[in-house]
Order: sequence, then structure tokens, then C-alpha cells
Amino acid sequence: MSNADIGLIGLAVMGENLVLNMESKGFSVAVFNRTVSKVDDFVKGRGAGKKISGCHSMEEFASALSKPRKAMIMVKAGQAVDDTIEQLLEAFEPGDIIIDGGNSNYQDTIRRTAYVESKGLLYIGTGVSGGEEGALTGPSIMPGGSKAAWPFVKPILQAISAKADGNIPCCDWVGENGAGHFVKMVHNGIEYGDMQLICETYDIMKNLLGLSYEEMGNVFEEWNKAELNSYLVEITRDILRFKDEDGKALAEKILDTAGQKGTGKWTGIAALEFGVPLTLIGEAVFARCLSAAKDERVRASKIFASPGKTIPADKKAFIDDIRKALYAAKVVSYAQGYLLMREAAKEYKWNLNYGGIALMWRGGCIIRSAFLGKIKEAFDKKPDLENLLLDPFFSKAIGEAQASWRRVAAAAISNGISAPALTAALSYFDGYRSERLPANLLQAQRDYFGAHTYERTDKKRGEFFHTNWTGHGGNTSASTYTV
Amino acid sequence: MSNADIGLIGLAVMGENLVLNMESKGFSVAVFNRTVSKVDDFVKGRGAGKKISGCHSMEEFASALSKPRKAMIMVKAGQAVDDTIEQLLEAFEPGDIIIDGGNSNYQDTIRRTAYVESKGLLYIGTGVSGGEEGALTGPSIMPGGSKAAWPFVKPILQAISAKADGNIPCCDWVGENGAGHFVKMVHNGIEYGDMQLICETYDIMKNLLGLSYEEMGNVFEEWNKAELNSYLVEITRDILRFKDEDGKALAEKILDTAGQKGTGKWTGIAALEFGVPLTLIGEAVFARCLSAAKDERVRASKIFASPGKTIPADKKAFIDDIRKALYAAKVVSYAQGYLLMREAAKEYKWNLNYGGIALMWRGGCIIRSAFLGKIKEAFDKKPDLENLLLDPFFSKAIGEAQASWRRVAAAAISNGISAPALTAALSYFDGYRSERLPANLLQAQRDYFGAHTYERTDKKRGEFFHTNWTGHGGNTSASTYTV
Repeated sequence: MSNADIGLIGLAVMGENLVLNMESKGFSVAVFNRTVSKVDDFVKGRGAGKKISGCHSMEEFASALSKPRKAMIMVKAGQAVDDTIEQLLEAFEPGDIIIDGGNSNYQDTIRRTAYVESKGLLYIGTGVSGGEEGALTGPSIMPGGSKAAWPFVKPILQAISAKADGNIPCCDWVGENGAGHFVKMVHNGIEYGDMQLICETYDIMKNLLGLSYEEMGNVFEEWNKAELNSYLVEITRDILRFKDEDGKALAEKILDTAGQKGTGKWTGIAALEFGVPLTLIGEAVFARCLSAAKDERVRASKIFASPGKTIPADKKAFIDDIRKALYAAKVVSYAQGYLLMREAAKEYKWNLNYGGIALMWRGGCIIRSAFLGKIKEAFDKKPDLENLLLDPFFSKAIGEAQASWRRVAAAAISNGISAPALTAALSYFDGYRSERLPANLLQAQRDYFGAHTYERTDKKRGEFFHTNWTGHGGNTSASTYTV
Repeated sequence: MSNADIGLIGLAVMGENLVLNMESKGFSVAVFNRTVSKVDDFVKGRGAGKKISGCHSMEEFASALSKPRKAMIMVKAGQAVDDTIEQLLEAFEPGDIIIDGGNSNYQDTIRRTAYVESKGLLYIGTGVSGGEEGALTGPSIMPGGSKAAWPFVKPILQAISAKADGNIPCCDWVGENGAGHFVKMVHNGIEYGDMQLICETYDIMKNLLGLSYEEMGNVFEEWNKAELNSYLVEITRDILRFKDEDGKALAEKILDTAGQKGTGKWTGIAALEFGVPLTLIGEAVFARCLSAAKDERVRASKIFASPGKTIPADKKAFIDDIRKALYAAKVVSYAQGYLLMREAAKEYKWNLNYGGIALMWRGGCIIRSAFLGKIKEAFDKKPDLENLLLDPFFSKAIGEAQASWRRVAAAAISNGISAPALTAALSYFDGYRSERLPANLLQAQRDYFGAHTYERTDKKRGEFFHTNWTGHGGNTSASTYTV
């Protein structure tokens, strides 16, 4: 075979599943792996009898591909990607296309796009979400990089991607250089937030309301039928109902120390660098860190007394409050994530299609949900929407949820149940809807000890004042600085 | 003069004030500045008649210094520091000492220490806190880098530093390479947290209790007399009492958009990188970001209704609750900051003296407070203290403050007043004292969609399990992975 439609390098499960997915959609695929024995194992095993061509060298791989060559790299993020790119640059020729489908840091993708383009080839860095299962049956795919490459890979990537309502592919062009991996990173951050929020509602139902696993499973089943309908709520229902061999809930026996793979951290770091208050995702990442300090927590639990519990009188009504709190906090989390994408887009001059991004997440990936359909509608109506919270649908939803949300957050706080994401989201919401925040005092402090100057509410923006705070008689020296 | 005790490069106000401070303590100082006219201005102006020698070239500067030469750089953090180091490497000789006293990123300081040492010279990166006033009268100084340099600069740096109770210098050796700048960075992050907490208490008193500026000034005056005694509480009292020319409180007229210079962000980024839940400082940094979006907030304020207010019946008692909440949250903030230093120390093999760090912050700098004396005592008693919250003094204080703290946080939430730092600190506290967190559900989710495996409470740590969650009949495939 010397005319394979696409090639794939890196035959771990994700890579293999993507190959099988491509082949099932009618594409012929050339495959290569650094440990060459894996190539034969795959071609004789899961790939047997299919239009899959196993290659034993990079040269063979290059000659197996139709031109312009298209090679997807599915190797470990980091140095391995750079190494593979170097090998491809040797074996390929100008006009060929290299696609990185791993979880690369968007800054690496920015660098690699420029580098590969400088050699006359084209580069795509694409987020692929949905895990191993999604890779096989249809993941969410978020490609960015060299736009000239898009027409060549679009038919393949859209064919293998998940499909949202109306058979629309959950894959579309995101933007230049690192845009695809940036959007994937934010997706992962939002996933952290969604998972943490669900955990907090579970914790409140379990430890404040005293619900059984069976009852909680039923609650999530109900929630999954309405506005919270989503993959994560669905699997939470299944998990809560899952029985261990002794007939008891398996979830209860799982150790409460959460792991992480780093993309949540990256999202938090990007938020700090861009100055976007991503408070909910930040708390979700930190909550995983705190959970990992299990032994220390056990020691601390013996030192600090819990406050007395005040169980809400009407449990059913309170469960409904929790549902609304979860929904409202989720809106805040997505609003913050979208703000981060907008700031990054400004910085990197990406022309992001925010409705299109919601659509890409609508199917295939871990955060897929009915909710994302509403986000798509919001951005379709108003592509330059300033903040998701300001969309009429969501502002109405939050307005209606507000009282419930406050009851749940206050109950968690009063009863000593840690709900960092639910409360951080509410603090953000209250800050966001504050015409005045106490930052005036903060600016006065900064001017007091560091002569940092301040602006005044009764003067136009851009005029800066400094006060000799320690002077007597209240005389303000109002000099104007050009900053 | 060819035997100046020390040299200083960079005659902005901070630099000038440090020179005058050194000279007042009996040291002769050679000075240089890139724009040479500033040298003459200074020597003829503020430096007139003092043992200050103005140099017009780097060569002249080098020959003005006694050996081993000691040069302190006070230029803008970043490239300017690297440029100055290059010039000094040319003019100086092996054994000489370069000191960076600016707000450099600790990673730059790690790199520069190795670089300068590779040339046979010694390098110190030191935090200097206290602003312009502190530089003149006695700042807090946190030096790290080449330990061999410390005996030579110790007499000078300790002489010019602030002094804590018992005339102990607020300056001592911190650790290798970037340790000094790292500790200074954490100091700045803590400063962000302290300022945000004070702002939140002010906001609650103003907008929930309806106190006047005069009344709030009196509250901070009272607070400054007891356990909250600190520079920031003191200046807040002054600020709240400060009258504009029309006799009204000036603070009320200051625009509520906070600026920042980046070290708070660095602290948050370091926390994410080290996996330390620095939730309070994170919220403080994000609160500044949110405050900056003034126009958007004004628009949002017109869309979202505030909840009805329930003003606490006993205002005096509630003000006391606020005081306790502020104190408890402050303990959490410092506990988190110390955890970050400990993690960094592990990574970089710094042998940090945590009590000594509290002492360095005890005077001269923005966060100086009586409170830091208690932290020093805690670490003096138990140098390997796992978490400040576990120290008997602080655990008792938090235990006593707990009920008040919950009342204040719940009131803020119920009444729609944003108090992100106070509530985040409480969420952390409740998480920290939780023997079990809901991360078991999170691990189940990760295992469900990504086969990430989990540990079990009824098995020993390090054994990992995976479940086929979608299988029927509750059969758990409990295979053990080596991860």
C-alpha cells in the first residue's frame, strides 16, 4: 500500500482506537510505533483484515502515505512529541501535515506550529476528548494550528468525531497555532470543576441529609432527566448504585485521595497569567491536592471538633435546593472558562467560535451535556457575548436558583461541610454583580505603603492620585501621573 | 575613595533609600546608575556630605570597592538584572559578590546563582520588603543564594534591616539559590491575602451592618490593640478616618479597581505547580482581577437582584464575630503559605528556618504583626510542625473562633456580600479537618471514564483497583496495578 489516507504514530490504546475508528469510517491507515513489535501485534491482532498498513520504519511510513501526507502523533506529551516531529521532518516533505493528538501544553503547540511551518510543512495540534472509549466510537476533536492544513484533514477528523444533535460533527476548526490545545485544556479544567461540584452535592446529601447510596443514586437519576442531563451525572448515578461483592456500595470503599494529570493545573496557571478569575476551577484543582493529604487530614480530624448539625427540615425541598445550586455554580464555572478563552484569544489573536466550541463539547467528551446546547444557543444569538452570566437564559436561571444556592452554601458552612467550589462560585457571582467592591480600600492601602496611586469615582478614568496619608489636616496632594 | 564597603547600582527611590540607610549605619557606599546624570544628582543632592562615592562607569565602580567587592543591584526585575550582571562579571573578579535586591522571580534567581557561581563569583538574591519608607528606615531582608557570600554581607544587611523585639535583625540567611526570593514571593502572596481579608471585613461592616467610616475606623483601632495588631490594620484605621477636602471619607471616593504587580500571581502559580492548596491567596489574586472589570460589573449589577438583607440583631456581637473570622482566616492563609514554602524546600533542598522567616517578617515589612510572633513561637517549639493549624496555640484559637467565623461567612453568603477569601479559608479548614472527603466519588468517576484506577479504604495503600462499572451483576474486577 502506498496511498494510505492518513498515518498514525503511537500504538497505545488511544492510538489504536483512533486507527480502528478511522478505518471503520472507510479510511486506509498506515501505522508506526517506536517499539516496532507493537506494529505487528496490532496489525495481526485488533487490526487484522482491515485497511491498516503496518510500517517498520519512518521511511516506510512516509512512503505508505498519499500526498500531502497526514500523520497523527499519539505519543506521551512532552519530549516524545518533539522527537517524533524531528523524525517526521526528515522523512516527510514540504506541504505534508503533522497532527499532534495528545494532551500537549498549548504553548508547546504554538512553538511547534511555528517550527514545523518554518520547515515548509503544516502542523495541527488537536485536543481529543472522550477517553479510550471515545477514541474508538467518536471523540470530541478540537484542532488548531496551520489553517492551510484543515481542508485536508477535515473529512477524516469530522468523520471519526462524535456527532451532536442533527448529526453535526463535534469537531471543527478552532484557530491558529495553540488554539486547539488551549480549548482542550479549558475543557479539562471545566471537567475538574464539574466533577468537584458533583462531589460536593454528594457530600452534602450524604453527610448533612444522611441519604443512602440508593437514595442518592435516585437523586442523580432524576437530575439526569432535566437541565442537568449530562454524562457525568449519568455515570455518578451508576457509580452510586454500583454494589461491591458484599452488596454494599462500592463508592463508599474507595479511598478519598484524588489524582490528577496536570491539565487542571495548567488551566489555573493560564488563568493567573491572563488575570481571569477562574475561581471555581482553581478550587477544584486545590481540592484534589487537599484530598491527597489523607494522613494529615485524619490527624487534623481528631483535633478539630465539628459544629453541631442542623439538618434541613424538608429534605425533599433541600435536595431541590442542591440541584439548583449545582446548576448555578456550573453556569459560573463555564462562564469563567469562556472568559479565559476570550482573554487568550485576544492575546494570541485567535478568532474563536464560542458557539462552535460548545458544540464540539456537546458530544463525545466527558463534559458532554444538555447544558452545552444552551451555551451554544447563547453564543449563536450573540457571538460577542461578554459573559455567559449575562445571557438572558442563564441570567434568568441563576436568578431563579439564587435563593436555593445561598441556602445550600450557608448550610454547608454552618454545618462544617467543605464545599469550596459551590461557595467560590457564589462569591464570584456576588462579586461580579457588585457595582462596588471593597477594592477601593485595597487601593488606598497600596497608595499608603507603596505610593501606587489610585483613581477616583468622581474623576475620569486614567487620572491617578496619590495621598500623603500620614499627613495631618486632610490635605490631599492630587497630582496626576502618566502611567 | 577605593575602599567602599559596598556598592549599589540603580538609583530609583528604593535604591537611594537603601544607600542612605547603609551610610547612616556607618558604611561607605559607591553608587552607579545607567543614566549617569542621576549619580551626580544624588551625590550632590540627598547624598551630599555623606560617605557616598558617585561612579560614572562600571570600571570606576569596581575600583571604588574594597575586596571582595559587594554590589547590590536595585533595577527593574527581568532583563535589566541580567544585563547588569553581565557588566559586573566583566568589571569584577572571582570571589566578588553580586546581590540582587529587586523583586526577581525565584526561578531567575536559581538560574543566576548557578551562572554567576560558574564564573567564580558569588550571588545573592534577596527579598527586600517595606517599600520606600522601609528601605530608608529598616526593611525586612530575605537573602538567599551563594552561602559563602553570607559572612561578607551579613554585617551590612543586618545593620540596615528592621529590628524585631529584643533588637533582633529582621534579616537572616534563608537558603541556597532562589530561597530568598521564593520566601519574599510567599510574603507578597500573604500580603495579598491579608489585604483582601481586611477588605472583606470592611465590606461586611459597611454594607451589612451599615457602619460609618468613623465607626469602622474605631473598630480597626480596637482590633489593632489585640491579637490583630499589625501594620495593615493600623493603616486601615488611618485610611478609614482620612477625610477628603470636603470633610467626607476619602476612601469612599477611591475607585474600586485594584492593581497588582505580579508577585501574587507568581505565588498562585507556584502553588499550582507544587500542588499546595493555596486557596485564600488564589482568591485574593482573583478578587483583584474581578475588581478590575469595573464596567462589566456595573452592567451586571443592573441585571441581578440582590437578596433581601437580614441585618444581625446585635451589631456589637457581630463585629466581634467578624474579628474572630478575620483572625481564623488569617491563620489559614499563613498555614497555606508555610505549606508552600515547605513543598518548595523539599523540591529545591532548602533547609528553611520557618521560625526565622516569621521573625524576618516580624518587622519592617507590610505584613508585620504581633501574629508573626506567635508563628515564630510555634516553629521554635516544633521546627518540623506539619501545619500551622496543628500548633496548639493556633488550633485553640481557631477552635474558639470557629462558630463566629461560620456566622460571618454564612451571613455574607445569605446577604449577597462577596467574601471569597473568608469563605475559601473556611472551606479549606473544613476540608482539612475532614477524615473523609468526597474524593472517593471523584476517583470512581475517573476510573469509570478513564480507567485511572483507585485505592480502597479496606486495602493497604499502593494497591490499585479498576472496576468494570458498566458491567452487570456487581462483579468487580479487582486487578492490582503497579503504577
